[in-house]
Amino acid sequence: MAKDKKLVEAITSMEEDFTQWYTDVVKKAELMDYSSIKGCMIFKPNGYAIWENIQKQLDARFKETGVENVYMPMFIPESLLEKEKDHVEGFAPEVAWVTQGGLETLQERLCVRPTSETLFCDLYSKIVQSYRDLPKVYNQWCSVVRWEKTTRPFLRSSEFLWQEGHTVHATAEEAEERTIQMLNVYADFCEEVLAIPMVKGRKTDKEKFAGAEATYTIEALMHDGKALQSGTSHNFGDGFAKAFDIQYTDKENKLQYVHQTSWGVSTRLIGALIMVHGDDSGLVLPPKVAPTQVMVVPIQQQKEGVLDQANALKERLRKEFRTKLDDSEKSPGWKFAEQEMRGIPTRIELGPKDIEANQCVIVRRDTREKIVVSLEEAETKLAEVLETMQTDMLERAKKFLAEHVSDARTYEEFQDAVENKPGFIRAMWCGNLACEEKIKEDTTATSRCMPFEQEQISDVCVCCGKPAKKLVYWGKAY
Amino acid sequence: MAKDKKLVEAITSMEEDFTQWYTDVVKKAELMDYSSIKGCMIFKPNGYAIWENIQKQLDARFKETGVENVYMPMFIPESLLEKEKDHVEGFAPEVAWVTQGGLETLQERLCVRPTSETLFCDLYSKIVQSYRDLPKVYNQWCSVVRWEKTTRPFLRSSEFLWQEGHTVHATAEEAEERTIQMLNVYADFCEEVLAIPMVKGRKTDKEKFAGAEATYTIEALMHDGKALQSGTSHNFGDGFAKAFDIQYTDKENKLQYVHQTSWGVSTRLIGALIMVHGDDSGLVLPPKVAPTQVMVVPIQQQKEGVLDQANALKERLRKEFRTKLDDSEKSPGWKFAEQEMRGIPTRIELGPKDIEANQCVIVRRDTREKIVVSLEEAETKLAEVLETMQTDMLERAKKFLAEHVSDARTYEEFQDAVENKPGFIRAMWCGNLACEEKIKEDTTATSRCMPFEQEQISDVCVCCGKPAKKLVYWGKAY
Repeated sequence: MAKDKKLVEAITSMEEDFTQWYTDVVKKAELMDYSSIKGCMIFKPNGYAIWENIQKQLDARFKETGVENVYMPMFIPESLLEKEKDHVEGFAPEVAWVTQGGLETLQERLCVRPTSETLFCDLYSKIVQSYRDLPKVYNQWCSVVRWEKTTRPFLRSSEFLWQEGHTVHATAEEAEERTIQMLNVYADFCEEVLAIPMVKGRKTDKEKFAGAEATYTIEALMHDGKALQSGTSHNFGDGFAKAFDIQYTDKENKLQYVHQTSWGVSTRLIGALIMVHGDDSGLVLPPKVAPTQVMVVPIQQQKEGVLDQANALKERLRKEFRTKLDDSEKSPGWKFAEQEMRGIPTRIELGPKDIEANQCVIVRRDTREKIVVSLEEAETKLAEVLETMQTDMLERAKKFLAEHVSDARTYEEFQDAVENKPGFIRAMWCGNLACEEKIKEDTTATSRCMPFEQEQISDVCVCCGKPAKKLVYWGKAY
Repeated sequence: MAKDKKLVEAITSMEEDFTQWYTDVVKKAELMDYSSIKGCMIFKPNGYAIWENIQKQLDARFKETGVENVYMPMFIPESLLEKEKDHVEGFAPEVAWVTQGGLETLQERLCVRPTSETLFCDLYSKIVQSYRDLPKVYNQWCSVVRWEKTTRPFLRSSEFLWQEGHTVHATAEEAEERTIQMLNVYADFCEEVLAIPMVKGRKTDKEKFAGAEATYTIEALMHDGKALQSGTSHNFGDGFAKAFDIQYTDKENKLQYVHQTSWGVSTRLIGALIMVHGDDSGLVLPPKVAPTQVMVVPIQQQKEGVLDQANALKERLRKEFRTKLDDSEKSPGWKFAEQEMRGIPTRIELGPKDIEANQCVIVRRDTREKIVVSLEEAETKLAEVLETMQTDMLERAKKFLAEHVSDARTYEEFQDAVENKPGFIRAMWCGNLACEEKIKEDTTATSRCMPFEQEQISDVCVCCGKPAKKLVYWGKAY
């Protein structure tokens, strides 16, 4: 009992210190660990298994839209990185450089990919000749490196895992369509699988990707009221095509530049899962993405028959759910605390009295509701509970998001909201960089996006009072 | 028609020049491409899809044995790499070094992982304290870098994809058991999924992994009679544990060193698939690993109803098989040649006459056998054909292997076999490095393994005539 308490006490509460709570959950749920290499993390089994589930389900959604996976080299020659001006300016300050290969000094430095636009452009310039070769809709799952000074598990590290899609199209319209299509794939996935509602919109020029014509984003709201950019989709127009000379002959036999897109999500999504759904007992995982959906915990397992029955139940449930049995020698209380810390959606308690009554007890991780169910009906009821939990988690997150959006029509309202109302602030903007910069300097809030669903909540810019052009979601962000 | 011919003519025949044939298949089947970075390859969709299928099925087999996936940093600090003497000597000459991060010169060089023993050891030294923490059976799927001077697609490149398992155990026996268990997982997978029979055995000390106590290997025989080391499993004993101080307290509260293993297979397996099953028309993929199992090819597709019917058939078959429809405007002959080049196990031809007769024609890639089948029975028959093809391919490969093993009892017989009998040579060995080196120098053949199934085919070493200790499989190798 003392031990059980220790495990639970070891977590800082969210209210007390959200940052510390986050670090505690990552550590205690054994998702990730620091490595000996500055800024690089170790994905431990519990953390990596979440990424595997994200990858599997997102990849299936990609493939339904015609995406083909490839793998490109992890190195980019310096001269290739430099071909697109904005792009190299955006990334060069934060890349790692390989200067020696084997025992020799390289003639040209190679950077470890921070992103692979340049490599894909180089490939496309070789394999795209005719309109018949278009479109190409390639994607890769890999790790990338951006030399970061300050790091936080899943949110910011020198190396992280992601996918990057890179496509080439014959027309500007087709490229724009693909850009929006992939943003929607991300948003739907996050809502349906991760139970995280997203605000979808376009980034301002200040916040867009280095080299893009337009960047679209999905923005999630964390429990502390800060925003997390969770995925982006870029329309490159023909900028990269011109820099890399990617041309095709159209049906009239004329040379045309291709139009390109790229889009990516990363292991940041795991950070979002933690900060949207977690509570003071640890992680809470939506059933659809949880590596383990059910933990069977025997009660008084030393009594004859209990372990056998618990094991038999686990074997039965395994056929339909990702199920584990905790038959270790820890106390049930300790096991409960561990299962809760790891965010496993349900546990099933089974003791001598349950067996006698031909029943078991399902306990939901999110509400802690206990549901007594006959052993025969375990599968049916469990399926129901998991489905309800998935829906409830999304509803709760939607409600939280709705309750944490405030409108500001004056600069005073804006500043007050940043101070006192954690969450997104909706406010009109004139479209000038100067106002965006002033707002950031005064309040630390940044423009998160110009939402697709525009409204005219006031006629003037919240900052300068000039005529308003766009409704913008603002907020402090990770 | 001229075009069809061109596609086929573009491949060198295996007999004429096996090396060129291999390169041609890789290129024409669009598996891989050279990149702008010396020694690094691009996995194109057709090639990467094979790797995805290997990964998915092998990963499931790993997990059945209790393996958990993790992800470790791609960088190793120089001081960490140097901790185990044999290991650093084996790898240091062929690693890539990162010396600059962002705008700063690093205080310590980081190598891009050539393999991750040192990182896993570093982790285990922190997380293993008690016998209760054991065993740990971790694996990661990633890319590794070894700076190679000469490269060949899938077989040797500066960066390649693989999985590396790293485990820690309480006892030497348990480590040895896991080492052999994983070798068997590999061999079974290769036989059952890739239809490639393997010779299983132990490497001689000369050929073992840098830092290992014992290395076990699976060796496959390519169509040109050369061997391909296809997977290895290493027992490290407690060597790394001592170098990295990985200790645990046992049940008697005494400090003990752990015993470790590591094991890996790589994208080399795709090279094996090509060279074991391919023919002069291109790749031949075993159905279980083929990204596309059935290609529906409409005949006279301009005629009314043909494309509709072909599409309807594809939609039906998709539910059970990985199916595609080639409705491009190429001629049927061109489509056949492409499907054969890519090694798609079966195609289904469907033309106006077939539709009238309510039938379609299944054509097997390996034997080119044509099977006319009523449309109603397409699924049943196709399942049968794919299963038979899988079995037949393994049987053919087994027969080829059996026919390409020759025994040598004298050095003359050995030299004659190397010259005139492509394949493995079985010969007795005294156990001395000198003989192994002499054989390699005289004949270029190397010791592939000491097979688990030992026989005493002669009493003396084939090289020096001293008493024989082991039967060894020798051969030229990739």
